Amino acid sequence: MTSDNRRPQPSDGLLERLASIIESRAPARGGDPQTSYVARLLQRGPDAFLKKIGEEATEIVMAAKDVDRADTDDSRRKLVGEVADLWFHTMVALAHYGLRPADVLAELERREGTSGIEEKALRKSAARERTGD
Amino acid sequence: MTSDNRRPQPSDGLLERLASIIESRAPARGGDPQTSYVARLLQRGPDAFLKKIGEEATEIVMAAKDVDRADTDDSRRKLVGEVADLWFHTMVALAHYGLRPADVLAELERREGTSGIEEKALRKSAARERTGD
Amino acid sequence: MTSDNRRPQPSDGLLERLASIIESRAPARGGDPQTSYVARLLQRGPDAFLKKIGEEATEIVMAAKDVDRADTDDSRRKLVGEVADLWFHTMVALAHYGLRPADVLAELERREGTSGIEEKALRKSAARERTGD
Amino acid sequence: MTSDNRRPQPSDGLLERLASIIESRAPARGGDPQTSYVARLLQRGPDAFLKKIGEEATEIVMAAKDVDRADTDDSRRKLVGEVADLWFHTMVALAHYGLRPADVLAELERREGTSGIEEKALRKSAARERTGD
Repeated sequence: MTSDNRRPQPSDGLLERLASIIESRAPARGGDPQTSYVARLLQRGPDAFLKKIGEEATEIVMAAKDVDRADTDDSRRKLVGEVADLWFHTMVALAHYGLRPADVLAELERREGTSGIEEKALRKSAARERTGD
Repeated sequence: MTSDNRRPQPSDGLLERLASIIESRAPARGGDPQTSYVARLLQRGPDAFLKKIGEEATEIVMAAKDVDRADTDDSRRKLVGEVADLWFHTMVALAHYGLRPADVLAELERREGTSGIEEKALRKSAARERTGD
Repeated sequence: MTSDNRRPQPSDGLLERLASIIESRAPARGGDPQTSYVARLLQRGPDAFLKKIGEEATEIVMAAKDVDRADTDDSRRKLVGEVADLWFHTMVALAHYGLRPADVLAELERREGTSGIEEKALRKSAARERTGD
Repeated sequence: MTSDNRRPQPSDGLLERLASIIESRAPARGGDPQTSYVARLLQRGPDAFLKKIGEEATEIVMAAKDVDRADTDDSRRKLVGEVADLWFHTMVALAHYGLRPADVLAELERREGTSGIEEKALRKSAARERTGD
């Protein structure tokens, strides 16, 4: 699979623009690890940004539990910020592998097809019921 | 903070459409936990979908390591699918808290401002350097 | 439930000794956040060490995938180190909540009972089969 | 590195006993995936139990936040149960790679040496301060 399956469309807007900025930070393209956090992540390689993905997912969980506890503008803003962090770091990972948000959106769109967005999730759930895990 | 900070724009396209579908699955809006995976997640409450976020983040890490090991169409497709899973489940979480992808995109856009998208990440990194963790 | 359910036994050895060291680092007991990493984690509170648990779990996953890729003394040593990191940070969490490794060992021992250690895991798995998730 | 660095000692007690039970569930040793959850995990391979490690880490985070919210016998028992789940699944991973709890305990003991248990954690923290991440 290549990113060419689905070329960025104007409607992808912001995510594609961010992806382009991230890609421009690759050390091979002149990104400077001294001044750019993304260049540093990309230079350090997969373990650096994959670890951030695990970390940011954990921070979403904590932020969501904080909203459950006290639903305030602040706790909700924190949650939004953590989701932004996670999406951002998954885009760094995508960039490393030559993939783009458009690929993810295409996959989500595909699942939204005839059987609706639940197709994939349901398929996985059904498979799990069969194996019992 | 409310979702009203930034109304969905046509450019948000797919993500907003998916968010609307997810919201329509809320049991309070008539979503049926018997037939809909999303309705079931929303009915079971935060721990159900937060657990999925931790799980899908782990699956991204495993899928990325598989691409590192063997960069094939298949392994890359798997990785894209896992990122789609994670984004999807974060949208279920957002829906539960009355938030939308537009809120996350607005936050990413804000960070893309004068100091560039690295502002927030760098700020956090700098803070960490000061505290030493 | 209190830690008194099961007093530390000589056989718990190292884990209990580590737990005592961790507890002695609590700022309330004189632990110094300037010189002690554990004191710093405990002072910063739950989010600090919970985030580490998510992070270390991710590092185990990456280290295990690295052993799958190249099973060397080095990659195995790395994996053992990551599991040590995770156990250690879960002990910091236990200490914060006034719990001890002995409580965890007692729970594992309980599960090891008549139905064997698989009882709990199987019960969860069976429950999941019923709900389909 | 092999597990032979440090042979199980009587003092390791329960963890080593559990490890032996887990090892006996390996399909190659006659474990039956039809009746044993551990045999099923080991048969399905690394992704199956690594995913559980990510999942259980997330459940610890949620359970700890629940104790923060309402510190009851129940919420604390839940937390202990999740830590037991995580330790158990890391032992399944260790077994798959021919490692044992004794290896992890030996590593923790090593860190407990002259510089104290904080050596490793502090070393990592210091390294992070230098690189700024």
